[in-house]
Amino acid sequence: MKTICEYTIDEYKERIEKFHGHLAPGLLIGGFMVDLAVKNKPDCEFYDVICETAKCLPDAIQLLTPCTYGNGWMKVINVGRFAITLFDKYNGRGIRVSISTEKLNNYKEIRNWFLKLKKKDEQDKDLLIREIMEAGTNILDAKEVTVAAELLDKAKSKKIYICSGCGEAFPSEDDRSALCPACNGEKLYK
Amino acid sequence: MKTICEYTIDEYKERIEKFHGHLAPGLLIGGFMVDLAVKNKPDCEFYDVICETAKCLPDAIQLLTPCTYGNGWMKVINVGRFAITLFDKYNGRGIRVSISTEKLNNYKEIRNWFLKLKKKDEQDKDLLIREIMEAGTNILDAKEVTVAAELLDKAKSKKIYICSGCGEAFPSEDDRSALCPACNGEKLYK
Repeated sequence: MKTICEYTIDEYKERIEKFHGHLAPGLLIGGFMVDLAVKNKPDCEFYDVICETAKCLPDAIQLLTPCTYGNGWMKVINVGRFAITLFDKYNGRGIRVSISTEKLNNYKEIRNWFLKLKKKDEQDKDLLIREIMEAGTNILDAKEVTVAAELLDKAKSKKIYICSGCGEAFPSEDDRSALCPACNGEKLYK
Repeated sequence: MKTICEYTIDEYKERIEKFHGHLAPGLLIGGFMVDLAVKNKPDCEFYDVICETAKCLPDAIQLLTPCTYGNGWMKVINVGRFAITLFDKYNGRGIRVSISTEKLNNYKEIRNWFLKLKKKDEQDKDLLIREIMEAGTNILDAKEVTVAAELLDKAKSKKIYICSGCGEAFPSEDDRSALCPACNGEKLYK
């Protein structure tokens, strides 16, 4: 594999370092995952992405697709699995790409890193990156899924209220609530 | 104000369109917010960011600071307030920047948009952008805060387990849990 989406491997590595801060192995694997998902996504006008982990993978999605956290097209539902789903935002049909723990048996250093079988200072980072490049999509599973209806974007517009606690604006569906979630118990600051 | 962090206004606008997809008013205001926060942040080696909304603002942070969703230095705690906090990741001391609903009284079109007092098709987008540019940091509040201890990154490393349901890897602090959160009831797919 010579490219990841529209980038050469080297271009993608540069973009990782610039955006994410360092060449994280998870972002490199994430590149192959996004590339595989994009190539196998359903034929649709608009797609959204679900990312099942908060670690690394969201940045691969944001670097390689139009979907970002702030524009709402990428949603992180952190169940801790290293997996992404690209899906038709209207009917939920899509493709889910994950790492196969079974296929990892052929790539010892990736397995050690991914399953945290070795401490960080015992890992061979050069070997790890070489194995990731060699493996490409060979450690991935891809399958068709339909996203649960409650996760589809219903684009309901909430009204804006002024919190009687902090005086700041916040969105709510509930006319009766006079307090924003932060003033209503979600502690952010001392 | 002629720059937003290290970018000219035009460069920043271009970056917004490329990353976020369109010139969202919230990202333009977000640029002034991040710039103000960066200029007033505590003197520290490493800072993290809390973003109090999932809408637009996370992308301003990701475009203008080293903090991204995937590298973990930006955390979104969605209490619905349009506010960010840059803070010393070790002691939690930082600066919180928010939009002042009071100061908005001087900027009618920003107020209409921010408080959703006008429907989208009744808003004057050119006027809105002009007001945002004119207002700059004049609609913002900034104050020193200390982030709650439970939100500081404790960098505890969780072990990785293989889920007995889906066979995929997931992190857990709890040795007894044999199922990942997705197999344990968090419904993602039909």
